[in-house]
Amino acid sequence: MNSKFRGVIPPVVTPLTADGQLDVESLERSINRMINAGVNGLFILGSSGEVVFSTDARRREIIENSIRITAGRVPVLVGCIDTETNRVIEHAKVAQELGADAIVVTAPFYALGSNVEVEQHFRLVHAAVNLPMFAYDIPVCVHTKLPGDMLIRLGLDGVLAGVKDSSGDDVSFRFLTMANQKAGHPLVILTGHEVVVDGAYMSGADGSVPGLGNIDPEGYVRQWNAYQAGDWNAVRAEQDRLAALMRIVTVTSGVAGYGAGVGAFKTALNLLGVFNSNRMPEPVKALEGQNVENVRAVLVEAGLLAG
Amino acid sequence: MNSKFRGVIPPVVTPLTADGQLDVESLERSINRMINAGVNGLFILGSSGEVVFSTDARRREIIENSIRITAGRVPVLVGCIDTETNRVIEHAKVAQELGADAIVVTAPFYALGSNVEVEQHFRLVHAAVNLPMFAYDIPVCVHTKLPGDMLIRLGLDGVLAGVKDSSGDDVSFRFLTMANQKAGHPLVILTGHEVVVDGAYMSGADGSVPGLGNIDPEGYVRQWNAYQAGDWNAVRAEQDRLAALMRIVTVTSGVAGYGAGVGAFKTALNLLGVFNSNRMPEPVKALEGQNVENVRAVLVEAGLLAG
Amino acid sequence: MNSKFRGVIPPVVTPLTADGQLDVESLERSINRMINAGVNGLFILGSSGEVVFSTDARRREIIENSIRITAGRVPVLVGCIDTETNRVIEHAKVAQELGADAIVVTAPFYALGSNVEVEQHFRLVHAAVNLPMFAYDIPVCVHTKLPGDMLIRLGLDGVLAGVKDSSGDDVSFRFLTMANQKAGHPLVILTGHEVVVDGAYMSGADGSVPGLGNIDPEGYVRQWNAYQAGDWNAVRAEQDRLAALMRIVTVTSGVAGYGAGVGAFKTALNLLGVFNSNRMPEPVKALEGQNVENVRAVLVEAGLLAG
Amino acid sequence: MNSKFRGVIPPVVTPLTADGQLDVESLERSINRMINAGVNGLFILGSSGEVVFSTDARRREIIENSIRITAGRVPVLVGCIDTETNRVIEHAKVAQELGADAIVVTAPFYALGSNVEVEQHFRLVHAAVNLPMFAYDIPVCVHTKLPGDMLIRLGLDGVLAGVKDSSGDDVSFRFLTMANQKAGHPLVILTGHEVVVDGAYMSGADGSVPGLGNIDPEGYVRQWNAYQAGDWNAVRAEQDRLAALMRIVTVTSGVAGYGAGVGAFKTALNLLGVFNSNRMPEPVKALEGQNVENVRAVLVEAGLLAG
Repeated sequence: MNSKFRGVIPPVVTPLTADGQLDVESLERSINRMINAGVNGLFILGSSGEVVFSTDARRREIIENSIRITAGRVPVLVGCIDTETNRVIEHAKVAQELGADAIVVTAPFYALGSNVEVEQHFRLVHAAVNLPMFAYDIPVCVHTKLPGDMLIRLGLDGVLAGVKDSSGDDVSFRFLTMANQKAGHPLVILTGHEVVVDGAYMSGADGSVPGLGNIDPEGYVRQWNAYQAGDWNAVRAEQDRLAALMRIVTVTSGVAGYGAGVGAFKTALNLLGVFNSNRMPEPVKALEGQNVENVRAVLVEAGLLAG
Repeated sequence: MNSKFRGVIPPVVTPLTADGQLDVESLERSINRMINAGVNGLFILGSSGEVVFSTDARRREIIENSIRITAGRVPVLVGCIDTETNRVIEHAKVAQELGADAIVVTAPFYALGSNVEVEQHFRLVHAAVNLPMFAYDIPVCVHTKLPGDMLIRLGLDGVLAGVKDSSGDDVSFRFLTMANQKAGHPLVILTGHEVVVDGAYMSGADGSVPGLGNIDPEGYVRQWNAYQAGDWNAVRAEQDRLAALMRIVTVTSGVAGYGAGVGAFKTALNLLGVFNSNRMPEPVKALEGQNVENVRAVLVEAGLLAG
Repeated sequence: MNSKFRGVIPPVVTPLTADGQLDVESLERSINRMINAGVNGLFILGSSGEVVFSTDARRREIIENSIRITAGRVPVLVGCIDTETNRVIEHAKVAQELGADAIVVTAPFYALGSNVEVEQHFRLVHAAVNLPMFAYDIPVCVHTKLPGDMLIRLGLDGVLAGVKDSSGDDVSFRFLTMANQKAGHPLVILTGHEVVVDGAYMSGADGSVPGLGNIDPEGYVRQWNAYQAGDWNAVRAEQDRLAALMRIVTVTSGVAGYGAGVGAFKTALNLLGVFNSNRMPEPVKALEGQNVENVRAVLVEAGLLAG
Repeated sequence: MNSKFRGVIPPVVTPLTADGQLDVESLERSINRMINAGVNGLFILGSSGEVVFSTDARRREIIENSIRITAGRVPVLVGCIDTETNRVIEHAKVAQELGADAIVVTAPFYALGSNVEVEQHFRLVHAAVNLPMFAYDIPVCVHTKLPGDMLIRLGLDGVLAGVKDSSGDDVSFRFLTMANQKAGHPLVILTGHEVVVDGAYMSGADGSVPGLGNIDPEGYVRQWNAYQAGDWNAVRAEQDRLAALMRIVTVTSGVAGYGAGVGAFKTALNLLGVFNSNRMPEPVKALEGQNVENVRAVLVEAGLLAG
């Protein structure tokens, strides 16, 4: 497996200024920090990169700045997330024009059909752009679970280069890696669940896309290196540490969903001095008051912040 | 209740040419046919108007042509359907610029939070445009059910002009119309379920948004007039006839979801000579073969087509 | 349609004494009150009759007492609700032995399969007992929606005598009544949604199974009689009144699901002097404090209780 | 952690004779085979032990025979699965009377409420019997996910001895094992997902409850021993082998849910000569024809059966 998309590829959290503009300074700090930590790639405009909150102009701004900052040091994967085929193709063409190394595409959403349409969707996007494509399996957002046999078929047909799995279904994940291996490993399979990357590596994952990697990129890089070296005790110990850090998303109250999850990430990055603000995209409110203090306490406990 | 948005307001099905372009000729025929039948308004770019399949340019094309064709004969409501607030506001501004009479907006989707964000979403869209706004309650697509108390509050605050209910929850619908009446009727409440409009009128609905109204607009107009006249037997008899016609969406096989529903609508309109083609937007296939014949048989049985 | 199971058939709420025993005195008062009001049947051991909370011994006690009290004045339908076929057959045999007029059976639950198993389930129960059987369509509890074509087939085959629809899906309900009419009306179709019985009657329902009929049986009887007489304005006016009364299940806070719904019914019956206690089955707590006062206020507003 | 409930505790699949009776001979062969392989306990009347298909008499028969056959060689955990508290308590008392070492109890199902009722349910069952109790977290069957903080609290209060996790949520599982460790390890935490036991061990699971352990108990025992010895490569290699074997549940067609899953287990046990028949409980059909051959092919490929 010699893909350039293996390893730790954090989904880049998008920093905003206090008045809601793209905070290019913070973005630069964050991207450089992750690359310096040794990540193997960056995934911009993912779910936690606020892709669906961003207008087309904002998406373009994020792509341009991220690619400029990255400057070829690692590959940049760009999320082209929209409801149906023709809208996705427009985003994919912009990504290609701006120099993306790969695109990441979900199943269609809002108007559902059967798997026939899902497969046709990926084939049509592939036909429209000349970039490696990752299928983004995220049923919690799109309400379709991508079937393993379809993914393998699309891999063998050269439609898909890989899969970013955020399905939360570790059983299907194991069956997918197993079928992929049997088929000659056509797909790069990445897990999006930062709390159980060790289990995904046990299942044979080719890498991870950890949102928490924005906060602690070194941890995930060390874990990946341990995995490559076959040092499972280190893989596991690192995971235990990172899972404890991930409690930043569970220690808040009165917030839910995106506001709790990405809200905690932005707050942590703000507390760590990486982001200038923990501002969230409309209509989501940033964490405040005791919720911020609770996130801080976890960072202190994890040794990332002085107490 | 003197709103100009009462009565029968079909969601306009979007005709495509055989090669996937907007079929302006068919659109003109269909809109004129509905207005001539006496409908009270038109809702373009709804779910069955393939809003989420349409690029921004296509959406603009649909709005411009529909408003030009309608020429002020009835109000035109425009669906501004997108994932989150800032993207929706962009669509809303286009709709306003092009002369829409009202906009129709769903809860945010893809990235979910709590009802706090949903309410804030509607308030922000309202603050950004000067048009009456309908909340579009369609949990099957957005996976959030709009709470009745929020809707009433947004109505009383002048944020919402009405609700287009496609929730499939007739119990909540009754509670909503009841609460609306008690609050002084701030909201125009329209049902989107063409098979049970009689029940919705029993519940006090202010009108209907029947997809099937593209096929048989006269039926829904007669039913509305009977409702206004208090002739419940006529309301019910018309509904029975229309429910039998609605079987066009259940007589097909091997297709699902959007392809079965809107696919049958387009096929019926094609068979009736209103649409030049039953072409569907990518990645959905048009009905063909026996499925077309099955739709034809229902139309014949309903007396809309010669046998 | 000459079935003896048409009309208003309330699901009998089960009264408990303060220490959790069956309160036979309250049961007698409640059943007599409903029969005196003119209901056409009684459905015991339904969901709101706490069937799944009741041990087998308790179920037997409820059946014996209900049949004794009813004394043949109206038919008694008995819910035989359990997870899978053989357990349901045991309950059905007890119901038959104790003199039930019909049984009511859901799809299997807990361990799901396909509709093949669901249909086989109904056929096996039918083969085991000599009683008319109603299918109880309640996906919120059993997580399977009974398909209309299966129901019609089972009706034509003599397996089912009818359907008690608590699916909350008024569109499918209309399609079912329509298909039933076309098939020669093999099924008695009853709605379980007390807030929209008028809409169900518009759809051609053969009766209703209103939980709220325990509180205000006269209302549902008047509504049924108005329906039989074709007086739709009276059907609707009665429904508006009953829907307002149904707010007893929405005015409480801090409770959810069964505790809120049946909890409000029991509390109302207690306040009206029909039940000696509003005790709920374990592990559910009875309503108390302000929640009781809120239920009282609705009863007063409805004129059922002096202010 | 010195609990006697650690390690490999297969959920015992229940063999039936061709005419649907309990097949005691096959049960004896299967239990002895598992104990001889070195399993650490047996869980009878679990979901795959067809608890919800079994009448009370059948459940008693299964308990009595299993405990007699086991004869104290390993602990026997008994599933007391029923809809609500009082029904569960009856089963628990029978299990206690017949000599169970522990009981396994799900959240209430069919009639749902809030977590308040779920917690009260476990407390009431605990108060009624003198046996260690495992909470069985299986939202796919009961439609409630048990919250981690509730589980820890019930563990610290001595209500729960452990958790059998079949939630399919590996992220919550990691958070649970982490919180359990922090709280002093009050709970024995077992995973029910046989395909990803290696990941669960990485997360710190105290054992597994693998349905596939009926087919290949030696594999899971070797894996447990490797885990205890810290030999992660062996843990993983064994898992890869077992995951390949688990394809018996995916190689069939035309069957779904329980019939596909437990149907494949019974068919494999029949092919291996452990069960005399692959008969399923009503209303489920046994696998037949090509489906049996497909299961056989997987067994041959796995080296469990001669080709």
